[in-house]
Amino acid sequence: MTRFTPDIVVLRKNTEGLSTKAYADTLAEKLPDHDIAHARTPAQERSLIESASVATGVTLTEDLLDHAEELRLFVAASSGYNHLPVDEMDDRGIVLANAAGIHAPGIAEQALGYCLMFARNLHEGWRRKLNDEWRHYKAGELTGSTVTVVGLGAIGTEFVQRLEGMGVHSIGVRYTPEKGGPTDEVIGFDEEAFHDALSRTDYLVLSTPLSETTRHLIGESELNTLPPRAHIVNVCRGPVIDTDALLAAIQKEDISGAAMDVTDPEPLPPDHPLWKMGNVLITPHMGGHTPRHWDRLADIVAANVERLAEGHTDGFQNQVNDPSVHQARLASRPEED
Amino acid sequence: MTRFTPDIVVLRKNTEGLSTKAYADTLAEKLPDHDIAHARTPAQERSLIESASVATGVTLTEDLLDHAEELRLFVAASSGYNHLPVDEMDDRGIVLANAAGIHAPGIAEQALGYCLMFARNLHEGWRRKLNDEWRHYKAGELTGSTVTVVGLGAIGTEFVQRLEGMGVHSIGVRYTPEKGGPTDEVIGFDEEAFHDALSRTDYLVLSTPLSETTRHLIGESELNTLPPRAHIVNVCRGPVIDTDALLAAIQKEDISGAAMDVTDPEPLPPDHPLWKMGNVLITPHMGGHTPRHWDRLADIVAANVERLAEGHTDGFQNQVNDPSVHQARLASRPEED
Repeated sequence: MTRFTPDIVVLRKNTEGLSTKAYADTLAEKLPDHDIAHARTPAQERSLIESASVATGVTLTEDLLDHAEELRLFVAASSGYNHLPVDEMDDRGIVLANAAGIHAPGIAEQALGYCLMFARNLHEGWRRKLNDEWRHYKAGELTGSTVTVVGLGAIGTEFVQRLEGMGVHSIGVRYTPEKGGPTDEVIGFDEEAFHDALSRTDYLVLSTPLSETTRHLIGESELNTLPPRAHIVNVCRGPVIDTDALLAAIQKEDISGAAMDVTDPEPLPPDHPLWKMGNVLITPHMGGHTPRHWDRLADIVAANVERLAEGHTDGFQNQVNDPSVHQARLASRPEED
Repeated sequence: MTRFTPDIVVLRKNTEGLSTKAYADTLAEKLPDHDIAHARTPAQERSLIESASVATGVTLTEDLLDHAEELRLFVAASSGYNHLPVDEMDDRGIVLANAAGIHAPGIAEQALGYCLMFARNLHEGWRRKLNDEWRHYKAGELTGSTVTVVGLGAIGTEFVQRLEGMGVHSIGVRYTPEKGGPTDEVIGFDEEAFHDALSRTDYLVLSTPLSETTRHLIGESELNTLPPRAHIVNVCRGPVIDTDALLAAIQKEDISGAAMDVTDPEPLPPDHPLWKMGNVLITPHMGGHTPRHWDRLADIVAANVERLAEGHTDGFQNQVNDPSVHQARLASRPEED
């Protein structure tokens, strides 16, 4: 019996309630000329990855990497890749691509949905509905308000696109404001400009990666600058907000509300006071969920498989490491010696 | 003591939790050269309207009209005016203007908010939040879906404007499709075209006035044509949907959900089964509420007061009757005799 030697292997760990079996099926549809294997057990992972030039999945352990003699490309099922052995992959000349962008439309919609829920008080409407209560209440409008978006990457850009017909004034905050952007104003992270924007903000939408600059970006001082009418929407990472400062601001009515798909800590502990705040929306880090998860990820794999077949060693879609530089450095070492 | 003879009188009935005192104050700011009176009691209404050329408020009874010898213009605080004695006003040559359009941005936002709540399952998120429950769940995307909007008046137009950056395909349904419209497709109410649109619809947004054509527009047959994935959003009038047929469709999972700011009957009775449906959002006919209610209504009054001052008898903003035709007819009668 000939041993099955796939060129693409899908690792077994499922994610966000989605099965990697469905992912393998989607890949098989998009890449009919390739042998695609779904590794359903640890033993299958070890054996199937031996011959594969491409692997994809939620994670790739160093142990498994030791079996991956032929591996040239790994496509992660998430945008984050801190959990992967990137240095090891560099050493072995393996290109690492991530899933950045596949979640952006859904997260952008969710951020706008939160803004509209706050503007139109739809969470109060739903609370009354759950109590069988027909009783008029007041609502505001997003129209005419100022929306500040921190981070103009894939998510921020998709969000701003959706503001197009909303009749709002938009301010974008990014590391490189000189690049401009799709918002009415674009500013950097310097204190004066940032606080000036905060002081005019009705809706503050956080869609920036976590970094040393953005950790606790929204703390006591920023919450003091925001007007009491302001709402915060966090769809990026929990620690971008100082949770204790946020709780205090909510308790003192320094801001009007917060919607958080991410928290710090995460999950939010069952006894955390934020659970009891009627103007705090919390969802369990599901903003990235999209029914098109595997479909869009498979497109990234397909594009990169094609690039691999063309003999390239860099310039892959969503490539996040640079093993060619590393390889060149390794290759040049003997000469340096 | 000189009797106060205002030229503009604000009638006392409040609306949507908003006080007519605030309305009178807003009018005074916008029309500093006019005498504006707030009639706080029935007796004040009768006495103040005697000299007024303009009155505005929620309603105007026939009794009160008998005191309104000088009245030339009445501006209703609502879009609907079936509750007003329109024939009497015609007879007396009184121009009637309504509040059409002032609620449109808020209602449009609310309709889009409902769409995004369904797409991103935010009502389920809020339900879990109210239960202190951190647990992942799945969500869809509005992006890529087909949104059908019935009625392309002020509300429908504002709603379609807000779809601009949403990445959806839009279908508009109107009485006069030959006029075109802002949607990707525009169709009429003929059965074949309407059902063809329904069969492709993910989100059906109802923003049409109630008429003989639109009463029970969405009944058993239309619910059979809609795909099971479809959601309905009703922000116009309850009877546009056949409530019993909707309930049956929800119970059989013939559609995925409904959001209703209006119901039939209204208020929805406390024991109505729709209250218990987890995929039915109900709000108490508050979609029209906007913090800019008096501000925008006062703008209509101000524009029309100016037109009145210029000596016009027609062509008023939001004018809904045609007393000049009626007056001309009355005037011509003696000649016919």
